[in-house]
Amino acid sequence: MKKRILIPGPVELSPEVRAALSRPMMGHRTPDFSAILEECWEGLRYVYQTENDVLIITGSGTAAMDAAIASAIKEGDEVICIGGGKFGERFPKIVKAYGGVPVEVNVQWGRAVDPSLVEKAASESDAVAITLTHNETSTGVLHDASEIAGIARENDMLFIMDGITSIGGDDVRTDEWGVDICVAGSQKCLGAPPGLSFASVSEKAWQAIEENSGRRGFYLDLSAYRKSLGKRTTPFTPAVPLIYGLKTALDEIRSEGLENRIERHRLLARATREAAKAMNLELFAEESHASNTVTAIKIPEGLEDKDVRGRLKDEYGILLAGGQDAVKGRIFRIGHMGNVDSVELLGVLSALEMVLRKAGHDLRLGEGVRAAQEVLSR
Amino acid sequence: MKKRILIPGPVELSPEVRAALSRPMMGHRTPDFSAILEECWEGLRYVYQTENDVLIITGSGTAAMDAAIASAIKEGDEVICIGGGKFGERFPKIVKAYGGVPVEVNVQWGRAVDPSLVEKAASESDAVAITLTHNETSTGVLHDASEIAGIARENDMLFIMDGITSIGGDDVRTDEWGVDICVAGSQKCLGAPPGLSFASVSEKAWQAIEENSGRRGFYLDLSAYRKSLGKRTTPFTPAVPLIYGLKTALDEIRSEGLENRIERHRLLARATREAAKAMNLELFAEESHASNTVTAIKIPEGLEDKDVRGRLKDEYGILLAGGQDAVKGRIFRIGHMGNVDSVELLGVLSALEMVLRKAGHDLRLGEGVRAAQEVLSR
Repeated sequence: MKKRILIPGPVELSPEVRAALSRPMMGHRTPDFSAILEECWEGLRYVYQTENDVLIITGSGTAAMDAAIASAIKEGDEVICIGGGKFGERFPKIVKAYGGVPVEVNVQWGRAVDPSLVEKAASESDAVAITLTHNETSTGVLHDASEIAGIARENDMLFIMDGITSIGGDDVRTDEWGVDICVAGSQKCLGAPPGLSFASVSEKAWQAIEENSGRRGFYLDLSAYRKSLGKRTTPFTPAVPLIYGLKTALDEIRSEGLENRIERHRLLARATREAAKAMNLELFAEESHASNTVTAIKIPEGLEDKDVRGRLKDEYGILLAGGQDAVKGRIFRIGHMGNVDSVELLGVLSALEMVLRKAGHDLRLGEGVRAAQEVLSR
Repeated sequence: MKKRILIPGPVELSPEVRAALSRPMMGHRTPDFSAILEECWEGLRYVYQTENDVLIITGSGTAAMDAAIASAIKEGDEVICIGGGKFGERFPKIVKAYGGVPVEVNVQWGRAVDPSLVEKAASESDAVAITLTHNETSTGVLHDASEIAGIARENDMLFIMDGITSIGGDDVRTDEWGVDICVAGSQKCLGAPPGLSFASVSEKAWQAIEENSGRRGFYLDLSAYRKSLGKRTTPFTPAVPLIYGLKTALDEIRSEGLENRIERHRLLARATREAAKAMNLELFAEESHASNTVTAIKIPEGLEDKDVRGRLKDEYGILLAGGQDAVKGRIFRIGHMGNVDSVELLGVLSALEMVLRKAGHDLRLGEGVRAAQEVLSR
């Protein structure tokens, strides 16, 4: 049985990216390897839509979130942390781990943040930064990052954004919005293998990092990465094969064109939502702020996770993501990021219909697929 | 021109490991992937010669060094840090980065530490731990870890060891010696790709970690890795292709047999040293404590780095390592770790002779090779 992964990362790799991983090893301090790094840095600036440096860390997305806080936040600093999902709620934990004081803006899971609450927190606190998970992977919500960036700017705070599941699949205007530290991961919309994470850093953020004389760990201290950038290298041995894969994945993004890629993700997301509704399923995220890279769907009354995800995996080899933490067993999530295309999505939606009907859910076969086709053929 | 890498990591990968990197992506929270992780944990315990848990971190070897200190050392804790090279001298920097107080035992580069100096430091300080870089990659020195472990035990201190370039290539008896936290890297003697690092943790160390209520960062907090171990997973998305590669590399080590593998490394190291001396070259490390995985050789009077490493790379496609920091331009280093075998080493030593003669060094072609042959055919 052929296996298919449609989770919000790690994503399937293209054959070219997979082949790149097998290339012979190179010395990581050689001019040849520096040339590959240069291309990665350049490609990352393209998807980030930024002129800032984008640093490459060997580690998961959380490593880059950690690096952002470790480097820019001083002991005792207040930081406004916007919640609303597993990853947004990870930031306050990291802030605490470095002696900062999180000011949490609670958001109901599945809803987008109300900017007025952030404004209120900004006016009532002495926070030096605001953190936001742009695309909340755990709930399928896309927050309005531009608006939050504006609040940070007006209050002279740093804007630290987790763009881990938006960058490369959705429109992230790092410079235009004013994202001071913007974090991404390799294994999501970029279509590269897991194990690398990225952080772009604005001049304002570099200033804060330089003024931070406190403890910031060692491996995740962004200033070490900046220093190495000047020498066209990384401070610590990078995951060479993953860098090969990243370079190839970034080349593929440039071939597709960032605008086309974003449009593809938006179309697939819309098709997924329309299909879900036509299958008598309820979306978990408020539709006005639905993610373009992952769609969260409620498990219908009377069914369990195993009836949906379990059957899809066992009968069709399709891996979707389940709910996490507070919504475990209550939702399932379809990742339509990276290299997923319309044909694959239509096949998966078809299988979902068959599985749901078999489990006793009330739907008419083909209705969901037709709704997706309508979107995709428009 | 075929390229050959004989640096002290990253090492060349076997064709099987390279092929493993290209395997299709898997969901990292699936039972199938957990089964692969289990095999990696088991294989690591075998090369570590330990019953302790060995945690897998996505990051370079420095990430695991950082994690060891971040997790086990509290603010204000004194830590005896044994120097003598770039990596041994990295520990005090990490200790400081977390608010600890390093008590540095200075060691001349190229010499092994004198245990009596460590005993003295232990009796004169309130240190809670001793750090040692077992095999100092920058100088080619192998310190006597067993003796230092004994001093730590007698003084009820933790023994934190960087075994990054010894584990998998030399004899590291984690449990027998009593190494409380033992760190390794994937891209060295294990023959796996760079990007993963490991830390074994003894019960004594777990106790210290649990008692550490201070700040320890987030991504590199070992207690998170322990918690996930119980769920047969990792706390953050691991570098899936590198885990595939690691599993294959560990399988290969088991096929060779750890004892045979260690013996191979020792033989190659002895052959390299005898060859160097027969080429009228001077070894940098004191021979009684020479590394079995990397050999550091002085650049002869009158020659420069480019005459040796430069020519080898340009004329024969062979990459050796240069000197770092204090010995930059003064030594070169041959990494004979991982999958290097006698035939490859003999070819490289032959090329080295030709290059040296061309650069004007006084030697008779074939003498170095013959000395190596004598060792290898014994």
